[in-house]
Amino acid sequence: MQHAPLRSFDDLTVGQEFAFGTHALGEAEIIDYASRFDRQPFHMDAEAARAAPLFGGLVASGLHTMGVVFGAVTGSGLFMAISLGGNRIDTRWPAPLRPDEAFAVTGRVLALKPSRTRPELGICTMLYEGVRVADGVTVITMEGAHFLRR
Amino acid sequence: MQHAPLRSFDDLTVGQEFAFGTHALGEAEIIDYASRFDRQPFHMDAEAARAAPLFGGLVASGLHTMGVVFGAVTGSGLFMAISLGGNRIDTRWPAPLRPDEAFAVTGRVLALKPSRTRPELGICTMLYEGVRVADGVTVITMEGAHFLRR
Repeated sequence: MQHAPLRSFDDLTVGQEFAFGTHALGEAEIIDYASRFDRQPFHMDAEAARAAPLFGGLVASGLHTMGVVFGAVTGSGLFMAISLGGNRIDTRWPAPLRPDEAFAVTGRVLALKPSRTRPELGICTMLYEGVRVADGVTVITMEGAHFLRR
Repeated sequence: MQHAPLRSFDDLTVGQEFAFGTHALGEAEIIDYASRFDRQPFHMDAEAARAAPLFGGLVASGLHTMGVVFGAVTGSGLFMAISLGGNRIDTRWPAPLRPDEAFAVTGRVLALKPSRTRPELGICTMLYEGVRVADGVTVITMEGAHFLRR
């Protein structure tokens, strides 16, 4: 899902919401990601994952889900022209994400703070959320800081 | 760096520290990761990155650095036999990581709490840190919760 690129930090308002499309991860890509970055049986082996007490089957690495959310945000072009980086993300995974489960990604502006030391930038705190389409259950939240050009 | 697998949550003590090896990311893998999960010029294009005000050159996606840290932890085998999953990670990137910069990964047990609802597991809060070898600067911290078998 594409957005018109923002031109300035000052174009944003607290409470503003954005949609970043619907996504899903197939079994093969879940296993591929996990084999590089999160080597745990319940992310890498559908058979072994059946015995996982909390999951009972293969689930996506939480880092992988983060990547999909952030990939959707950066790929949308919204912050493309003004993003200068970021320095924190607090992530929660309230429920597991299984193969081929569609989840919708949205973002909301939580706070906007002009930088005290760098007048050319502002700090935008965003709350991103991934919600499973089938049942409305939240599978990930990410609260993060973007440094944006003014 | 391999560790002998822990046998139980109760084998851990608060303050205990673990080393997870020294790592680095090459330019090609930084760009490859970013092209999938973090499409920003300062992560994808060395030429364009020179103009990035806060970085002045190509830097690794913070999600990529997270993946290297978590890959080192899960790949070490330490929690392999008792990990049941996790539900949160709070990440900070105090300084950027550039191509081929070696960083050492360590972990420290911050807190240990038996589950009130599930006597078969405990919640272990770990603080992971990546420190650039050349100058001792911290490039990432990750505070996360592991659910571990007792």
